[in-house]
Amino acid sequence: MLGQMQSQPLLISSLIVHADRHHGEGEIVSRRVEGDIHRTTWAEVARRSRQLANALGGLKLNFGDRVGTIAWNGYRHLELYFGVSGSGHVLHTLNPRLHPEQLAWIINHAGDSVICFDMTFLPLVQAVAANCPTVKHWIALCDADALPAESKLPNLHSYEALLAAQSDTYVWPEFDENSASSMCYTSGTTGNPKGAVYSHRSTLLHAYAGALPDALSLSARDAILPVVPMFHVNAWGLPYSAAATGAKLVFPGPAMDGKSVYELIEAEKVTMAAGVPTVWQMLLGHMQQQGLKFSTLNRTVIGGSACPPAMIAAFNDQYNVDVLHAWGMTEMSPLGTVCTLKNAQTSLPREEQNKIRLKQGRAIYGVDMKIVDEAGKELPWDGKTYGDLLVRGPWIISSYFKGEGGDPLQYDADGLGWFPTGDVATIDADGFMQITDRSKDVIKSGGEWISSIDIENIAMAHPAVAMAACVGMPHPKWDERPIVVVVKKPDAQVEKDELLKFYEGRTAKWQIPDDVVFVDAIPLGATGKMQKMALREQLKDYKLPTA
Amino acid sequence: MLGQMQSQPLLISSLIVHADRHHGEGEIVSRRVEGDIHRTTWAEVARRSRQLANALGGLKLNFGDRVGTIAWNGYRHLELYFGVSGSGHVLHTLNPRLHPEQLAWIINHAGDSVICFDMTFLPLVQAVAANCPTVKHWIALCDADALPAESKLPNLHSYEALLAAQSDTYVWPEFDENSASSMCYTSGTTGNPKGAVYSHRSTLLHAYAGALPDALSLSARDAILPVVPMFHVNAWGLPYSAAATGAKLVFPGPAMDGKSVYELIEAEKVTMAAGVPTVWQMLLGHMQQQGLKFSTLNRTVIGGSACPPAMIAAFNDQYNVDVLHAWGMTEMSPLGTVCTLKNAQTSLPREEQNKIRLKQGRAIYGVDMKIVDEAGKELPWDGKTYGDLLVRGPWIISSYFKGEGGDPLQYDADGLGWFPTGDVATIDADGFMQITDRSKDVIKSGGEWISSIDIENIAMAHPAVAMAACVGMPHPKWDERPIVVVVKKPDAQVEKDELLKFYEGRTAKWQIPDDVVFVDAIPLGATGKMQKMALREQLKDYKLPTA
Repeated sequence: MLGQMQSQPLLISSLIVHADRHHGEGEIVSRRVEGDIHRTTWAEVARRSRQLANALGGLKLNFGDRVGTIAWNGYRHLELYFGVSGSGHVLHTLNPRLHPEQLAWIINHAGDSVICFDMTFLPLVQAVAANCPTVKHWIALCDADALPAESKLPNLHSYEALLAAQSDTYVWPEFDENSASSMCYTSGTTGNPKGAVYSHRSTLLHAYAGALPDALSLSARDAILPVVPMFHVNAWGLPYSAAATGAKLVFPGPAMDGKSVYELIEAEKVTMAAGVPTVWQMLLGHMQQQGLKFSTLNRTVIGGSACPPAMIAAFNDQYNVDVLHAWGMTEMSPLGTVCTLKNAQTSLPREEQNKIRLKQGRAIYGVDMKIVDEAGKELPWDGKTYGDLLVRGPWIISSYFKGEGGDPLQYDADGLGWFPTGDVATIDADGFMQITDRSKDVIKSGGEWISSIDIENIAMAHPAVAMAACVGMPHPKWDERPIVVVVKKPDAQVEKDELLKFYEGRTAKWQIPDDVVFVDAIPLGATGKMQKMALREQLKDYKLPTA
Repeated sequence: MLGQMQSQPLLISSLIVHADRHHGEGEIVSRRVEGDIHRTTWAEVARRSRQLANALGGLKLNFGDRVGTIAWNGYRHLELYFGVSGSGHVLHTLNPRLHPEQLAWIINHAGDSVICFDMTFLPLVQAVAANCPTVKHWIALCDADALPAESKLPNLHSYEALLAAQSDTYVWPEFDENSASSMCYTSGTTGNPKGAVYSHRSTLLHAYAGALPDALSLSARDAILPVVPMFHVNAWGLPYSAAATGAKLVFPGPAMDGKSVYELIEAEKVTMAAGVPTVWQMLLGHMQQQGLKFSTLNRTVIGGSACPPAMIAAFNDQYNVDVLHAWGMTEMSPLGTVCTLKNAQTSLPREEQNKIRLKQGRAIYGVDMKIVDEAGKELPWDGKTYGDLLVRGPWIISSYFKGEGGDPLQYDADGLGWFPTGDVATIDADGFMQITDRSKDVIKSGGEWISSIDIENIAMAHPAVAMAACVGMPHPKWDERPIVVVVKKPDAQVEKDELLKFYEGRTAKWQIPDDVVFVDAIPLGATGKMQKMALREQLKDYKLPTA
């Protein structure tokens, strides 16, 4: 017996139609590449998305063709989110911080037909164009008169000229909600990057779930600042959830320094901001230096990599801003867990609550997770036992684009497929998950595991330490022993012995690193994460003093 | 090109699995028919739902068979919500306030195989049983020793005995998410009642949408009191959204009087309560009489019928409780709109905000709405023009059970089907909808429409008026003229002329009723709504003084 409800596929076009009809006057504010502040509305973004859809039709694209973007966070990128996917094409957001060779590899692998780019990235585009034979059109996100006279790019269009030539009447097509809507490549620390291919259905379910009070709690009263790039897993889904809720959006463009971000938050009365720890470090640094306060910001979502406890404390205690510690992956659309308290925990003392806030949080409804041992057996939720973290859900991948890497899923006794996250975690009795390490970074010492993150957090708590990375080094007796690689703060001094002494009482004796290596910089990836693979490469001639 | 995300049907079983795994310790508190307070947890509800699913299998039910319930709000009814639908059967909630003949008609029309009932309703069940040939099993929601010795019911089981005999191991089946999950009949003011058949997909999308910050804003920190009955459109979806968020649930059982509801709110630290205006009237009456305050309640959802402005003001101003004015229908699962402010409105003066709060609110993402004229042409959103309200969305019906009433949808030029709500409404430029009347209640006077609700609200604002109903009476010159039928408060006095004078300055002169008719009571339906059809029947010999 079937239900008798209206049959409507979950399509991204329904988001922009909703924002247009019910939140047409809602503001979209962007700091542009040009440096000025641009103001528009959801109705205008919807209108231009329809023009864009018509323009893509004019370029003779077929259903499912990939349209790449190399762009900052701004209103034109937002229009691409809806115009490209809504018309049945696949939005492929590209990370401009990648090496040109890697970028060209990804464009070719995805088979992008069109690339849209901010003028900032013209040199990058010129560097890769000759190696991208699938790309038939290059669209510069600018006015016609801003196009370079000699670009050497075949079929170079101005986005504004393309749109201006089109009607703003367009009927969004209806198609299977499982159709691909967008794609994003993992940064790929080993092997080639792999493509996660999202569907309209997965994107819409994620848009609902991400806006829930237990997730990012988004409403029509919010002004959202996605500092997290729109090329980084769909800016954590914020553009979609914002359209669903009619929230105001504020885009930082390329200006991610503390001063620019702070000024935008204040000028546009931002209530919620989302980004990775490195960006917040710059913001907090600027504010502490200048003695500034927030007047409207009430919460900030921190994800992308584990958030240092000191940062959570600074936001909470100094600035009265709730930190939503979140965790997810490119393969997860990306939201998996957010750390928000449960009913019974709201009456705990602040100190107890702060301990909970250090965890990555609880599974949003739609996501299930478990920790397993090496045999795949589920481990207890006691907050102590750690194991490989596996996840399931309708916005988690089942395979990579073109089947690269084979079937990534791990199957349980009931035949259910779980995606192995590559993280090692604990889950407590209340369902709060805490990442203890990446599987490949965990240090295996004498049959016991040492969390590299724990070791790094202790070093980071030392006033002279700017950045710390813990890696395991081969040891004849213990298999591996940890060392900590440290970048000192400018003008700050600390010696090896002092730092090792700092560990005493802060961790078990056998977990204290065997050595400290001071360096000028730790290699960072395109999304600001420490690249331990590259670091290990730098240390290939290093020998443990204890080995 | 398809997305490459995990394929998981949206099934109600996933809600109870989530609540079990991630909120197992979450509390479910019920005032029982027996009068005592019963405490359980989501884990225990999940466990017993699995036992129930096994028990239904033992009764040889087939996939899609209907299981009726005649029950108050409580933990056993909650177990039926998940155990029945999760195992592939259809939960059919029955309204015990219906006349036995109507109840039997509905049970036969739905073809219910099993009826589960609270012992309070034993006489009702005994009155209908002989006329319900499709019902093979009667399950009393009680312990074995509470079963009557001579019930005259064939195949009468004790729910507790049935469960106790079953294993609590059960693998929830996977099936098409468009399968029927539950059904509910409209009260049907004209003709026979008609069945709305919900699907697993529609129920899950509604569960996400209903929990959004712009809807009921439900989280794991909430303690929810659904005073709205679980037989009344799935208690507005609260049991499902509560499972998705892991909120605490508090059930009032049969005790809906002001004192019982107040005591439960305070004892269980309820943060959010949902119900129809008549219940809140009793609660506020009790509190005002006793000089009581709320200590934890921060919001209340009022729907089911238009909320009197005085009630919104009392909650907001006297008790500091936000009123979420909501609107929906049995045919809409039921949520359509909720009145929550937008970003730009948060800085308006309180007085302006209160005017907005009188409206039924904005469409939740997933629902679209429009107002149309008699030719089906869309009317402007100016807050003044009114027309027939039409809605679309994945949790709105496409047809009634067994096709009763034919195709209810109205199709637009693009071929999209819209459900006509039977309401007349305005929509303002910000998308806030306000019901001005039911289509059949609007008074058509000299080519102009008069809203019966406006006329009633003015009378209700008079201190001597307890209840008021406005109906149109035939008039030789104006077609119809309004009269107002009034129930006075106990010991209060007001005369016709005084009340008519009260309208002066409160509405246009031509909209002032032609007469006042004082009565002892206005007929109310099973869900507490005024029955204007019955009222008109009572007034069939009435003649307008002006005609």
